[in-house]
Amino acid sequence: MCELFAMSSRMPTSVGFSLETLARRGGAEGPHRDGWGVGYYSGPDVLLLREPGAASESGLAHHIKQHGPPSELVISHIRLATRGERALQNTQPFVRELGGRSHIFAHNGELDGLAGLPGAAVRRFRPIGDTDSEVAFCSLLKDLVPLWDAAGEEPPPMEQRFELVADFASRLRQLGIANFLYADSDTLFAHSDHRIPPGTEEVLPGMHVLERGCTEEVPDMSDSGVTLKTVQQALTLVASAPLTDEAWHPLAQGEVLAIRGGEIVGRRLD
Amino acid sequence: MCELFAMSSRMPTSVGFSLETLARRGGAEGPHRDGWGVGYYSGPDVLLLREPGAASESGLAHHIKQHGPPSELVISHIRLATRGERALQNTQPFVRELGGRSHIFAHNGELDGLAGLPGAAVRRFRPIGDTDSEVAFCSLLKDLVPLWDAAGEEPPPMEQRFELVADFASRLRQLGIANFLYADSDTLFAHSDHRIPPGTEEVLPGMHVLERGCTEEVPDMSDSGVTLKTVQQALTLVASAPLTDEAWHPLAQGEVLAIRGGEIVGRRLD
Repeated sequence: MCELFAMSSRMPTSVGFSLETLARRGGAEGPHRDGWGVGYYSGPDVLLLREPGAASESGLAHHIKQHGPPSELVISHIRLATRGERALQNTQPFVRELGGRSHIFAHNGELDGLAGLPGAAVRRFRPIGDTDSEVAFCSLLKDLVPLWDAAGEEPPPMEQRFELVADFASRLRQLGIANFLYADSDTLFAHSDHRIPPGTEEVLPGMHVLERGCTEEVPDMSDSGVTLKTVQQALTLVASAPLTDEAWHPLAQGEVLAIRGGEIVGRRLD
Repeated sequence: MCELFAMSSRMPTSVGFSLETLARRGGAEGPHRDGWGVGYYSGPDVLLLREPGAASESGLAHHIKQHGPPSELVISHIRLATRGERALQNTQPFVRELGGRSHIFAHNGELDGLAGLPGAAVRRFRPIGDTDSEVAFCSLLKDLVPLWDAAGEEPPPMEQRFELVADFASRLRQLGIANFLYADSDTLFAHSDHRIPPGTEEVLPGMHVLERGCTEEVPDMSDSGVTLKTVQQALTLVASAPLTDEAWHPLAQGEVLAIRGGEIVGRRLD
């Protein structure tokens, strides 16, 4: 069982991670984690911090607890190994360049029969590690190649990317548990399947989402000849399990979201 | 003017970076650096830490000053912007996956006429940022594609990779100042051109190398029926300017080295 978390916002937002707390939220006990990773986007590129060990013993994890760089798009993953040894190359999120942008992917669940996925054996995107999750990522990128290779400076139309991601998600769901977060530097895509906490037979929602729009109130000074720009912040969080007591909305099995600038801009449920 | 540094060793070695000290060694004054990056290999993958700002003001840089993870292959770069804005996507080393391995590249110098380089316009490896250095990296990877796409679990023969890298280096040298470090997770390649420190007309070697083989002496206890394994460490360092008072060897203009497990395994001077 792994923990997924993502943040999309209109204005750059600093996200500090207490990875141990996140892991506990998801029902994990003790410090026995097999790895953690956080990707902080900055424009088209991403700072990707990962370690194949327990966050509680990591100086780097301790550092980002308070000092995450401001970002509009963040994805995090905490790993309990099910497949693949404990090693950097098996530690998510994974990253690849496509269309002059850094793309990252994090998956929670177990998949079977990935060899049948289109693109699983192509050379252009080849897994570095041994996880089913990375094979899935490479296959997704393969699907996206025609769109991104044809793109110029701007990303391909969001609707076209969303359709390809949602189609991929519905195929992946046939192969096992397929909760995933994927970002292409412009848009965050979240696919919810379901979760079964370790040692239980309880079937829980694969992902939860929390939307927050807040407008900083500024005084109306137009009469004085002075105008202030309103800073409108919009923020959407996605996580395996609710992280606060607020009204996190569980996603349905098979639901796919596209989130951009802190707002949900696409939603599909097959 | 940027500072390059690389370490290759037989046994995992912890490299702590005092980036400010490194920058001063290279003749830079004050904290006005435009970015820094360090890649620490772990098997086929790399932990790549980068920030588009002054190391002196960075918590992350402060962290790695003492806590670099043990690694057998490390490349570091400190940037003074000449082309491209100060942004993460213009901060070296750059990374791409090829053949199921993470490849990283760092360059010091200025290049012109890169559009004429084969592969500079291909889609498979597309620059994320705006630097001439990243265009050069994409072009190098394009040259290496046939080798790596044909490879299985093991890297292609070192001699073949070395020849391609050295050929690329000799073409790149025609376009400007082309000091670079490149690693494919298995081997470190270093190409020395020349350096002209800012504000001077002095022409210095582009790179210096320090080889160190040290055998930990273990007592010969074979008579007692006990044997101890000798730990043989081999270590090679490459840097823009000598970092210690030891006998760093300047590389000639146009010299290319291949370094693996701490030992120089290939050398070519056109």
